[in-house]
Amino acid sequence: MALIVQKYGGTSVADAEKIKNVARRVAQARDAGNQVVVVVSAMGDTTDELVKLAYQVSGQPDRRELDVLLSTGEAVSSTLLAMALHSMGYPAISLSGAQAGIKTDTAYSRARIMKIDPKRVVRELDKSNIVIVAGFQGVSEGEDVTTLGRGGSDTTAVALAVSLGAEECRIYTDVEGVHTADPRLVPEARKLAEISYDEMLEMATYGARVMHPRAVELGELFNVPITVASSFNQNPGTLIHGEVSMEVRNKVRSVAHDPDVAKITVVGVPDHPGIAASIFVPLAEAGISVDTIVQNASIERITDLTFTVAKSQLNGAMAVVEPIAGSIGARECLSDAKLGKVSVIGTGMQNAPGYAARMFRALSEKNINIQLISTSEIRITCIIDEARVKDAVRALHRAFELEINE
Amino acid sequence: MALIVQKYGGTSVADAEKIKNVARRVAQARDAGNQVVVVVSAMGDTTDELVKLAYQVSGQPDRRELDVLLSTGEAVSSTLLAMALHSMGYPAISLSGAQAGIKTDTAYSRARIMKIDPKRVVRELDKSNIVIVAGFQGVSEGEDVTTLGRGGSDTTAVALAVSLGAEECRIYTDVEGVHTADPRLVPEARKLAEISYDEMLEMATYGARVMHPRAVELGELFNVPITVASSFNQNPGTLIHGEVSMEVRNKVRSVAHDPDVAKITVVGVPDHPGIAASIFVPLAEAGISVDTIVQNASIERITDLTFTVAKSQLNGAMAVVEPIAGSIGARECLSDAKLGKVSVIGTGMQNAPGYAARMFRALSEKNINIQLISTSEIRITCIIDEARVKDAVRALHRAFELEINE
Repeated sequence: MALIVQKYGGTSVADAEKIKNVARRVAQARDAGNQVVVVVSAMGDTTDELVKLAYQVSGQPDRRELDVLLSTGEAVSSTLLAMALHSMGYPAISLSGAQAGIKTDTAYSRARIMKIDPKRVVRELDKSNIVIVAGFQGVSEGEDVTTLGRGGSDTTAVALAVSLGAEECRIYTDVEGVHTADPRLVPEARKLAEISYDEMLEMATYGARVMHPRAVELGELFNVPITVASSFNQNPGTLIHGEVSMEVRNKVRSVAHDPDVAKITVVGVPDHPGIAASIFVPLAEAGISVDTIVQNASIERITDLTFTVAKSQLNGAMAVVEPIAGSIGARECLSDAKLGKVSVIGTGMQNAPGYAARMFRALSEKNINIQLISTSEIRITCIIDEARVKDAVRALHRAFELEINE
Repeated sequence: MALIVQKYGGTSVADAEKIKNVARRVAQARDAGNQVVVVVSAMGDTTDELVKLAYQVSGQPDRRELDVLLSTGEAVSSTLLAMALHSMGYPAISLSGAQAGIKTDTAYSRARIMKIDPKRVVRELDKSNIVIVAGFQGVSEGEDVTTLGRGGSDTTAVALAVSLGAEECRIYTDVEGVHTADPRLVPEARKLAEISYDEMLEMATYGARVMHPRAVELGELFNVPITVASSFNQNPGTLIHGEVSMEVRNKVRSVAHDPDVAKITVVGVPDHPGIAASIFVPLAEAGISVDTIVQNASIERITDLTFTVAKSQLNGAMAVVEPIAGSIGARECLSDAKLGKVSVIGTGMQNAPGYAARMFRALSEKNINIQLISTSEIRITCIIDEARVKDAVRALHRAFELEINE
């Protein structure tokens, strides 16, 4: 008898009918002879609505209280799924993050899982229960509710799979799996049968919304196979694991994109030690995530420093950087909020030259101007005009022949 | 520095504006130099909406799961109130029933409080926090969430007041206090400045909705003074306590009414031992609360047995009673779903004769037919046509001169 962990996202449990649909899927896994642990997100827009409510009573909601508030969303969906299973004749029990033994630090709204003590989960499985765990939440040492932040429910699922020694972790969502590019942009995009942790990590980080990088990282660290599939049909999804078939035909596996890029350039920065720190330490303290950073070679000890942030953080970042720019003697701060990024990703690129050239040529053939470039061993990313992102993704998908079956 | 417990009902925290209003009231109590513990109900219709959701996924929702589901309502309101207090600059923390140490049995949906271990509440008070406790909920020995059933939040408040040794428990609601009769029916009804536990208990049991009898009982048992007042103004409310001024002018303190009465009569019952048990034990097992029971003097060892239930339970009660009536040789079962009851209540009646006669005369002068009568030491109740309840309440209020100040 195998133990499997399934996770269903918010769109999969958005209303009573969808919850019943999920219950039928869970029941199938049980009927197939498995022990089943299910992690659920909050129904549809519940979390957004709770956040809205919080901002109606407070301009700056206390983060401990906000975490308790948001955790109710998953309590609701998990109990409803348990009830739906009962009404189909299946034994099931819902557990909160605390009851499931998910111990976190006290970093409210973005808590990290410290350890999992799954004894209650095991006890309920031993009683033949299907165990439904409220995702996205845990409990601190002081017995206060915490939430895990973005990607929280995926992380709950993978962490439970690790601690229970599950055979597999299945992430059910509203897409059919991981594709060679976003199918809404590229109609000929193909679903990948498998992908490596590293590739998925780059894709998730560089714009593919299908799974949160944090959960992928955890899966890689403990080598838990993760399958991403649709909760609305029975098609096989994409297996994320460590041993991807070697020598796949395409060295580039997929094109990721992200339209949410804003750029700040600090112009005319005196180039001496400590300048970068004087800008990026205050940004980090203000909670602003900086993505790509590029510093030009300096001419006469004067350089330009460019970095990107999410569009929603541009104003906050400018408020931090402008006074600093003044105090360090930079000439000015420029910003551009209308950017996006496209990335090609594949472990096959690692020891094979020429991929960057092929990418730049494909973009230039479409007259798409490259503003910034950043690379990892298995990824090349170009920052371009937001308006050209769609064209760029299509051009790259074609240039790397991703529509052809491997 | 006094410790006071306040409780705010669902209508008092129905939306963000009302929650901010409650926060201002809590802050006043704090500014007056008190330590403050606040118990809140779920916002407005939240509980009903959650129940509806449960019935959308299951014809018969599992009671353990339903309790977890419903408990989220108070988690939401308690965190929002804590946030509202923070935004006004007051230190506050919300606690779940479990965190507040409210230990119950495992009778889901109607759990009883076994004990309260308020050490976390005390610790937070010592840290100068205003402590907001989610009402209506507790935790079982097995660490599962339970709900306390009807009157749950009032009970949470009184029980916390008992266990913390609070000076006072203040129940804030949408009425100004306890009145001599329902002001919607009797415009000249007066708010009572004080009332005894026993009187309040009879009133609550016999139709006054202002407070649940269960919480009153607990207050009486541990002699905690309870004040009922409006959350929407600063008027003094009604003090419920043990030592009510002696020799008050009116021996009858108030008229209670309840339009929700249905009657079942088992006609022609052979009068021998065990007959009553054969009817009422199965009713209790079916979860049907029987109110008034009247058995006529038997003629030739045949009697009629009449009892009342809530209207919503009439069909269920008939389904239980009809087959039994057949099997014990009764002639037939009759029912009437259009009844109500009026009661006059006052500890002053206890040793003073003539009150029943005065009540019956007042009703007869208005041509109101009395169908059943039941009494306690401090209460006389008549079951009458539902359509005449309003007239009866007004007539009794006048007959006992309740509009005149004591």
